[in-house]
Parts: sequence; structure tokens; C-alpha cells
Amino acid sequence: MRIAAFRRAHFNAAHRLFNPDWSDEKNREVFGPCSNPNYHGHNYELEVKVVGEVDPETGYLIDLKTLKDLIKEQIEDRFDHKNLNLDTEEFANLNPTAEHICHVIWTILRKHLDERYELVVRLYETPRNYVEYPA
Amino acid sequence: MRIAAFRRAHFNAAHRLFNPDWSDEKNREVFGPCSNPNYHGHNYELEVKVVGEVDPETGYLIDLKTLKDLIKEQIEDRFDHKNLNLDTEEFANLNPTAEHICHVIWTILRKHLDERYELVVRLYETPRNYVEYPA
Amino acid sequence: MRIAAFRRAHFNAAHRLFNPDWSDEKNREVFGPCSNPNYHGHNYELEVKVVGEVDPETGYLIDLKTLKDLIKEQIEDRFDHKNLNLDTEEFANLNPTAEHICHVIWTILRKHLDERYELVVRLYETPRNYVEYPA
Amino acid sequence: MRIAAFRRAHFNAAHRLFNPDWSDEKNREVFGPCSNPNYHGHNYELEVKVVGEVDPETGYLIDLKTLKDLIKEQIEDRFDHKNLNLDTEEFANLNPTAEHICHVIWTILRKHLDERYELVVRLYETPRNYVEYPA
Amino acid sequence: MRIAAFRRAHFNAAHRLFNPDWSDEKNREVFGPCSNPNYHGHNYELEVKVVGEVDPETGYLIDLKTLKDLIKEQIEDRFDHKNLNLDTEEFANLNPTAEHICHVIWTILRKHLDERYELVVRLYETPRNYVEYPA
Amino acid sequence: MRIAAFRRAHFNAAHRLFNPDWSDEKNREVFGPCSNPNYHGHNYELEVKVVGEVDPETGYLIDLKTLKDLIKEQIEDRFDHKNLNLDTEEFANLNPTAEHICHVIWTILRKHLDERYELVVRLYETPRNYVEYPA
Repeated sequence: MRIAAFRRAHFNAAHRLFNPDWSDEKNREVFGPCSNPNYHGHNYELEVKVVGEVDPETGYLIDLKTLKDLIKEQIEDRFDHKNLNLDTEEFANLNPTAEHICHVIWTILRKHLDERYELVVRLYETPRNYVEYPA
Repeated sequence: MRIAAFRRAHFNAAHRLFNPDWSDEKNREVFGPCSNPNYHGHNYELEVKVVGEVDPETGYLIDLKTLKDLIKEQIEDRFDHKNLNLDTEEFANLNPTAEHICHVIWTILRKHLDERYELVVRLYETPRNYVEYPA
Repeated sequence: MRIAAFRRAHFNAAHRLFNPDWSDEKNREVFGPCSNPNYHGHNYELEVKVVGEVDPETGYLIDLKTLKDLIKEQIEDRFDHKNLNLDTEEFANLNPTAEHICHVIWTILRKHLDERYELVVRLYETPRNYVEYPA
Repeated sequence: MRIAAFRRAHFNAAHRLFNPDWSDEKNREVFGPCSNPNYHGHNYELEVKVVGEVDPETGYLIDLKTLKDLIKEQIEDRFDHKNLNLDTEEFANLNPTAEHICHVIWTILRKHLDERYELVVRLYETPRNYVEYPA
Repeated sequence: MRIAAFRRAHFNAAHRLFNPDWSDEKNREVFGPCSNPNYHGHNYELEVKVVGEVDPETGYLIDLKTLKDLIKEQIEDRFDHKNLNLDTEEFANLNPTAEHICHVIWTILRKHLDERYELVVRLYETPRNYVEYPA
Repeated sequence: MRIAAFRRAHFNAAHRLFNPDWSDEKNREVFGPCSNPNYHGHNYELEVKVVGEVDPETGYLIDLKTLKDLIKEQIEDRFDHKNLNLDTEEFANLNPTAEHICHVIWTILRKHLDERYELVVRLYETPRNYVEYPA
């Protein structure tokens, strides 16, 4: 019995979009106000989807309390109330677009999740703009 | 023209998580407060997804009023304002985890839905914890 | 500078509506399925509103982290994953209608909140049914 | 690195469901109050999903500002505050069911979106009734 | 013990804004696309607030099932899937702005609600535009 | 006929909480991670409430399009995609707590709103933490 289970979490962070290979002018042209050198920020909302077989003893795909704790330790503690560009090693040299943040979160969680599970991460930058990896 | 149509519904129920093959201590250890012998409860939110071909005469995949009525008769009337463990035959001998409730709902609806439709059921136990079958 | 600050929280509980002075028949007649002897349950959503003067040093009306912790200790730990009728002293002899639960929560928080603050509690039993005390 | 990006938008419109090959009686029988000759209306909520490879220079799958503008020009300006049956050529001869509106929006956006992207459109007629194309 | 209880409901309707004392040009100037002669529409979301004393026998301010039924009979059955301008006597000669619709709903409900209750009606025309009467 | 009309808007910004009269240690102690020197951020959601008499000619309390444009010009253009501490004169010397931001927004809008209207501003820093001025 193959099923998906989802857990939502959130973190608040500052960032700016910036490509160091480009001039400030080009950054402004491509990224607009998202490239503000003094940063802006978001309430990031995270949906973590895990897929696999239900355990016949517990009736659980995964203990969502365990998944909640994993997200807390690996994602919220790392990114919440941080400046993604300045305070994290993940985005020291990587442009923190929603696409990249989503992929980074997926990569971190993937390492800590038993390989019998498939993993999909959806990241809401705002209620109207969001991304999902893998597609 | 293959499309998906969705209908949302909800029901309020009490339950407890419990494996009768285990001691009370082990149930408490694995299921934590969800195993409270006096039960707790949820506002379950249900999303029913139906997939198939649009009828060229009506422009409908399925009359959502018909789907709404089916969900009302088969799911809401069965589970709303009930204690899943005590008041339903489906969970008399099945641990009412979100995964199992979702699968039971899918199985019931599957029997009443024309076989030309695919069916996917998503069940929200809370706005932050939810499951989907099949994955 | 008088302002209001709000904090939301939630807890999941089972309950039944029941007046011990009435026959089972009358309870069923008045409370309908809400009087199911085996209980049903809800995801209760709580909105706590505090009103007062902003502290000129902090710029806070109240530290919302402090309010969050107070709600966690006094309300969530008391009611979450509980059967309100069986597991709590507050509702051992009080019918757990949304109105009464809201008033009980207000009374508990009032005792722990500095008297310079006004307090209003809103309780959602479902997204469509909710109450607020005081009115 | 294959990813999905989503953008939400909305428009408010009037419509009626009607098959001109049928009698008024049959229209009323099949479509019920949705066939009211004087129309009714909805706040349509639109979710546009685009799938493809992230651009290594920008870190974007697609500039969501560009997608927002495309939806504004091609969908909102066309359908917002319109009577779908009377004011649009798309539904002059096509029954404006949610399924058909969703397919029409997909077809319009598909023409304006670079072919390296996959496209999925979800249309909410109400928060409880919605469709998605392709399935 | 004075408390407020709330019930939410919804209806879908078409309307246009129009002042018959004005030219078409002036209507278009003042009301913009809301004055489209062929109508547009909304999913109206309604919040009904009732204030009064809790009944010591039931623990209810008001039976929300009764309030739900009253809203169904008096408001939903009257306005749902209707063209407010053409299909209702209330707006035959009254411009159906959100303000007027809200006031009309308040007036209808007021007649059917026991005078021991205060009544407040909030009407959402969209999730971002809404009104409340009385203020 | 006295009524309230509401309009919602939003802006995304970075900020840090900081009292320059205090040591870094005390700032960290009082404001916790909200005092991160590199900033963090939020999707601020704004609810603007206007109260007054309905205009008998238009049936409007206020043209919500006008209110939307006012919020856009005076609030969104000023604060969206900004660092509140570094990029705005309003918070150059004022700690950008939710309480202060809400009061600043009220003060700006008050200057531009006809004095026949009352004004209330609610500001959501997150869906669970929000403030309202005046209370």
C-alpha cells in the first residue's frame, strides 16, 4: 500500500537575488527589486512530501512527529531568522532563488531520510509564488 | 481531453491510535498522546480527485453535485461526529491512522465510482499533516 | 499608544455535548450528533487578543514569544490530544460547548496575564463555527 | 535540475451553463441552478504550473514576474469582470464549465509560453470545486 | 456571560453596479468594469455574528445549526446562483454594491432573529475586499 | 447607514529588532533571533479598515479601487522589497516591531484619507502573529 504523507513547516528569512558575475546594473535589470543590496525577506512556507509503503504494524508511512523534528533540526534551525546570503554556507555562493532554496532543502532532507522513501519539496515564497522539486 | 476534477468535504471525528498486539506502554511509546485511551479528535478535511475524459455534451468530467452527494452519503454520513474506533465497522479492527482512513475512504468511493474514472484521495488530519492515496 | 496584538495556537481534542440533568433522549434532541456518547472531535484553533500600551523601550505591546509560551503551557498542554469531558477537570462538570471552552480559556489566561492588559479569546471549533469572549 | 514553478492569479466573471442542442428543460435538469438564464458568477482562482530546467545564470526556472504579466495580459484582461457567455469569443459557442475554461486558459497560455516548458493549469471555481488540465 | 458566536456561509451570484440616474458614460466612469452591462460575478462569503447571553441549560449562545438553517433559507436560497440585479426584488431598484448587499442581508436576518441578540454581518466580495454592517 | 469596508494588501521586507540604547547582548536577550544583525524578513499582510457613511449616489462607503491605489502608492511602494531599518526614513530611528510598523502605516494613511472616515490598520507579520491599531 503505497501512499504519500505531507508535513508543513515555515521559516522567516532575508535574502537578495544576485549573480556576482554580473554588474550591479545587470543584477538590477534581471532581478528588479529582488536584488535590493540591503535585502528584503519572506515568510517561507515549506511542504515536505514523503512517499512509500505503509508499515503494517503502525499504520504509518512515517511518524510525522519524526518528520516534523527532522525539518525543525535540519531546516528551521538552519534558516529561520537568518539572512540567507550572509548567515548560511549553503547560499554563500549560490543565488537564493526559490528554486535554489527548494533544491537545497531537498538535498539536506534527502541525506537524513531513509532511502526507502521518495521525497518531494514544495516551497512557497509567497502564497502566490512557489516551486516544487523534483517536478 | 483528459482532465482532473476535485471536490472538498469535511467531517469531525474522535479517534485514538492503538495496536492491540502491543502493550499499553508500547502504544504510548510509539503513538504518544495520539494513543490517549479516552480519545482525541480532528476536523478531517477531504479532497477527492477524479480523473478522466470530459463528456462532450455536458462539458463536465463528472457532475460535481453528484460527487458531492456521493461523498456526503458514503463518507460524511458514515464518519461525521463519530468515534472512528468505537462507532464504525471499518476501524473496529484497523488502526485509524490518517493513512488507513485515507485508504478506507478511497476503497469505499472506488466501489461507487464508475470505473472509467481514476480516483485519488487526500486527507488532511490537520492543516499541517496530511496524506494522499494512491501516491 | 494603545494597540492590540494577536497570537494564534491550536489543539486537537475529543468532546461530547451533554447536560446531565436531561434524559439521553433530550440530549440527543437538543445536541444532535454532537451528543454522541462515544465522542467526536475537532482541531480547535485559538486566537488570543491582548490590548494595552506599547512599551517605549521595546516597541512591543507584549513579547509574543512570552504569549506563545503561556498559551502552550496553560492551554495546549492542558487540552491538546485530550478528551475534554473525561480528561480535564474544567469540563468534568461543565458542558464543553465552544462558548464554555472559550470562556474557560479566557479565565485561565486572565489569571496569568498582567492586569494592565485587556484580553479577548476567539475559538474556532471549525473554520465556519466560532465564538469570541468577551463580546 | 528539473523543477516546477507556480503562479496564482484570479478573475471575477459571470457565466451560465447551457447546451444549445438541448431544450431549456433539459438544460435545467442537467445543470440545475448553474443554467440560470440570467447568469450567476464566481471569483475564479487560477494556478499556473510551469515545469522545466533551471537556468544556471539566473537560478530561475522562469521569471515569475514575466509569468505574472503573461497571465495578466492574456487571461485576466480577457476574462476579468466579463460575462463569459456574452463578452468572450472563446465561450460564444463553448459551454463555460470549469473544465472548458481551464482548457481554454491552458490553450491560450500554451501559445505564449516557450515550448521548452511544460504547462499545467488548475482552476478553482470555488474553494471546494476545482479542475486541472492536463491530468 | 456575554459572548459572540459566528457562522460562515457563501453564495455565488452575478451582478453589475449601476445608477439609473446616471448616463452609461458616468456609470462606466464611476464603477469601471464593475458596471459591465452583461454582468460579472463573485463567490460571496458571509460571516454572521450574533451577540448575547449564553443559555445556562445548553451552554449555547444560539444553536449554530439553527443559525446555519436560517442563513440557508433566508440568504442562500434567495441569492445563490442568481443575478442580483435581475432575479431578486431586493436589488431591482438598489445598486448591489457590497455595502448594500451586506445591509440587505442584515435587514433580512434581523427580522428572523430573536431581538435578544445583537447582529453583525460581514460580507466578502473577494478575499481582499469586504464590508461589515453595522460598523 | 454607517458601515466598514476593508482592503487587504501585502509587502515583503527585511528588518531586525534593535534598541540602540542597549548593548548587543541586551538586544539579543530581549529580541532573540529577531535581533540578528544581518536581518531576517517577512511577507507582511495588511488589512485596512475604513468606517463611515455610505454615499447614497454610489452605494459605496469608499471606492475600494481608490483605497487600493492609495495603499499601493503610500505603503507598498515605500516598503515592498525594502530593508525597513536601512532603506526607509520611517524606521531609521524607530525599532520596526509589528506594533511600530502598524502605527506608522496608520499615520501615513491617516494623512491621505478624508477625515470623515475612521481608520483601523491590522498588520500580520506571520499568519499567527499580528497587531491592530487603534485597539
